[in-house]
Amino acid sequence: MTKAILNQADIPRKWYNLASDLPIPPLPYLGPDGQPVTPEMMAAIFPMSLIEQEMTAQAEIDIPEEVLAILAKWRPSPLHRAVALEKALGTPAKIFYKNESVSPAGSHKPNTAVAQAYYNKKAGIKRLTTETGAGQWGSALAFACSQMGIECKVFMVRISFDQKPYRKVMMQTWGAECVPSPSMETKLGRKILAEMPDTPGSLAIAISEAVEQAVTDEKGETRYALGSVLNHVMLHQTVIGLETKKQLKMFGIDNPDIVIGCAGGGSNFAGLAFPFMRDKINGADIEIIPVEPASCPSLTKGKFLYDIGDMSGMTPLMAMFSLGHTFIPAPIHAGGLRYHGMSPLVSQTVVEGLASPLSLDQLECYKAAMLFAQTEGLIVAPETSHAVAAAVREALKAKEEGKEKNIVFNLSGHGLMDLKGYQSYMAGELTSHVLQDKEVEGLLADVKGFPEAEIRRSGRWN
Amino acid sequence: MTKAILNQADIPRKWYNLASDLPIPPLPYLGPDGQPVTPEMMAAIFPMSLIEQEMTAQAEIDIPEEVLAILAKWRPSPLHRAVALEKALGTPAKIFYKNESVSPAGSHKPNTAVAQAYYNKKAGIKRLTTETGAGQWGSALAFACSQMGIECKVFMVRISFDQKPYRKVMMQTWGAECVPSPSMETKLGRKILAEMPDTPGSLAIAISEAVEQAVTDEKGETRYALGSVLNHVMLHQTVIGLETKKQLKMFGIDNPDIVIGCAGGGSNFAGLAFPFMRDKINGADIEIIPVEPASCPSLTKGKFLYDIGDMSGMTPLMAMFSLGHTFIPAPIHAGGLRYHGMSPLVSQTVVEGLASPLSLDQLECYKAAMLFAQTEGLIVAPETSHAVAAAVREALKAKEEGKEKNIVFNLSGHGLMDLKGYQSYMAGELTSHVLQDKEVEGLLADVKGFPEAEIRRSGRWN
Repeated sequence: MTKAILNQADIPRKWYNLASDLPIPPLPYLGPDGQPVTPEMMAAIFPMSLIEQEMTAQAEIDIPEEVLAILAKWRPSPLHRAVALEKALGTPAKIFYKNESVSPAGSHKPNTAVAQAYYNKKAGIKRLTTETGAGQWGSALAFACSQMGIECKVFMVRISFDQKPYRKVMMQTWGAECVPSPSMETKLGRKILAEMPDTPGSLAIAISEAVEQAVTDEKGETRYALGSVLNHVMLHQTVIGLETKKQLKMFGIDNPDIVIGCAGGGSNFAGLAFPFMRDKINGADIEIIPVEPASCPSLTKGKFLYDIGDMSGMTPLMAMFSLGHTFIPAPIHAGGLRYHGMSPLVSQTVVEGLASPLSLDQLECYKAAMLFAQTEGLIVAPETSHAVAAAVREALKAKEEGKEKNIVFNLSGHGLMDLKGYQSYMAGELTSHVLQDKEVEGLLADVKGFPEAEIRRSGRWN
Repeated sequence: MTKAILNQADIPRKWYNLASDLPIPPLPYLGPDGQPVTPEMMAAIFPMSLIEQEMTAQAEIDIPEEVLAILAKWRPSPLHRAVALEKALGTPAKIFYKNESVSPAGSHKPNTAVAQAYYNKKAGIKRLTTETGAGQWGSALAFACSQMGIECKVFMVRISFDQKPYRKVMMQTWGAECVPSPSMETKLGRKILAEMPDTPGSLAIAISEAVEQAVTDEKGETRYALGSVLNHVMLHQTVIGLETKKQLKMFGIDNPDIVIGCAGGGSNFAGLAFPFMRDKINGADIEIIPVEPASCPSLTKGKFLYDIGDMSGMTPLMAMFSLGHTFIPAPIHAGGLRYHGMSPLVSQTVVEGLASPLSLDQLECYKAAMLFAQTEGLIVAPETSHAVAAAVREALKAKEEGKEKNIVFNLSGHGLMDLKGYQSYMAGELTSHVLQDKEVEGLLADVKGFPEAEIRRSGRWN
């Protein structure tokens, strides 16, 4: 057997909330006044049902039937054993990948997009705004809104908008509107374009624009949807890890040795890793690795502090690893990983030592992705190539050590909309992008004046 | 249940050969002298194992373990019920689609590409040449050759090469070479470019170039692979229909009422339909519909006659429906359906009345594909849109008649590499392309002098 296939009835019926199990929960979100944000304060942006999920301490939350019905279009996703890759590496390790690229939008993102569109629709909302980097999230929300019959407007980071013109067509095919960010449609966008007409944009800017459009809708019919970072997004993605646990058992594996996911805002990593994190908290010996680009290394070079999630402070202050909200990362092809911050929940797992982050340069990642394409046959997204490269590293380490480890990574998306990156790589046009320590200090000047985030850990994994 | 999922162990172990069951088998291939082609004559192009499959009367042929191992990367593919589409149409019909878009190359084509690469590798061949229209086949063969560790060179019809630049990158990522056809690399290519420097190319030209390169390799290490038309290609695709029959039973359906596939050379249609054709020959009441573009209607406006499969007569004469081998179809986005001829096996099923062809204009097809994207969530290939549109027609007919029909169609590929067509459609830039009867007569002047193909039918379905 090289592939574990579950039936429609095996789709998880409940999401798993890691916050309920963490020895020390994440610090609260704060308002501009330094006081914890109340649910009511978030109601201009999100429907109350999602705000409740954001703040709950409940361990498991029922997935609505209407959401399950749509997830069933592609879930459960397969778990593959990468036999050909193992052979090419000559490793005694077994490498498994959870294939989230089988969704209509081509990534894990619809897992939360469908849930968010559902709760908004149920709250009477008629329109969602959002940002997108590489386009995976924007496509996913466009798909989800189309399924729920509500409108969708996407602000796409300009560098990706230009690199990937067909992402826009994809969103339009599902009935959504897509504009490059910064745009002339918002106050912030106009201001930035006036100052930096040639900016490649950033996720932080695009988030600000999308939130601005939502909160300035006078009819109150528009809300905002975020594709990563927040607790409720991590929650919705846990179907990935919950399925993977069942599937590994079909291969006779109770606990893998190593769990890997690429991490930008943290959602696909969390989706795979959090259910394993629960086992780790309960004593299992699992190494859990979020992988980020060396050009945007929030977990490995950023600081744990209170920062805003966007460019202009439309979001609350969140305690997370950050490179500073004005950071505009190098224009790498992994647009979905170009984010200055990191999910507060994922950040807290790093503070606790439950997760051990790694940063990789894009050249190593593309090299691994080429090997993966020519062995396993799948062309992965540039974001996903980071997880592939980390899995390759770990498999080679196991070879050196002569250990039969079980490695599982999240194949978060396919790269069929991102072939320009492969083209540039094969033409030798890509360069290394490694953010230096001294650059980070300058970036963090922007967070001065924000409240300090206390580093609190149980000490069990440090 | 909205999706029937099979396990890896349910992948068919044998291909089904329709020729064994046809009341009257297809006419033999003929050489330029009008005499039947012998296996030896084809050996410059294909390995003997495939030639045997081409000519066998055996009903079932074992699938090699090595081929099964690679097919298992994406097979069995899911069979979905299109509940959202049914609802949008308000039809009492049940619509099912077999999702062949889940393969690494995004279509059904790898089913035969893997088998062909395997048999060539086994025969000691080091390199395969081929043609591709929209790019589905070229990508599939690039993937398959990469899996088998042999080289691959693809001549891509120039109109598609220009419309879909990332198809080339996809093939290159799998290590293949891809050049636009007509090219300067072959005698025929140079001749055509001298006469028609602006030609959009055609599958017939690209086939000629690929065959020319294979047969002129002085070391004898190169063979040619064809992605459709031939008997062994139809054979390899029957895994689609064999799986679908099992999956329909999971929905409680012994025989569907209507089976639909789009048809260019005929392979995805045959793959789904031939196993059902066997039931029809044995008495089942099933309507079987190959759907072709109105701009290239070989089955509905062409004539059943002996014609060559390429532009310059590198292939044998085949008895099939054809529009004449010099026909250059309008540059519709469904590049995979721009072929002058039709599989001899599929042609014979039409002669017999076992299949009832339909031709549709691209505007109706894109309209149906947009509806499909916004209901079922999947963006289909322009080729596949023809099958979707036919399924929509049949579902609406069932509504008019108040009949609860079971309709199944082959979702042969996704359209993520073909979004330019959707873009043009949404911008209102696409026009109708309907080939007129009077145009066909002129086209068929080219086949004068070829032997006549006798129309032989049992009369059981006419």
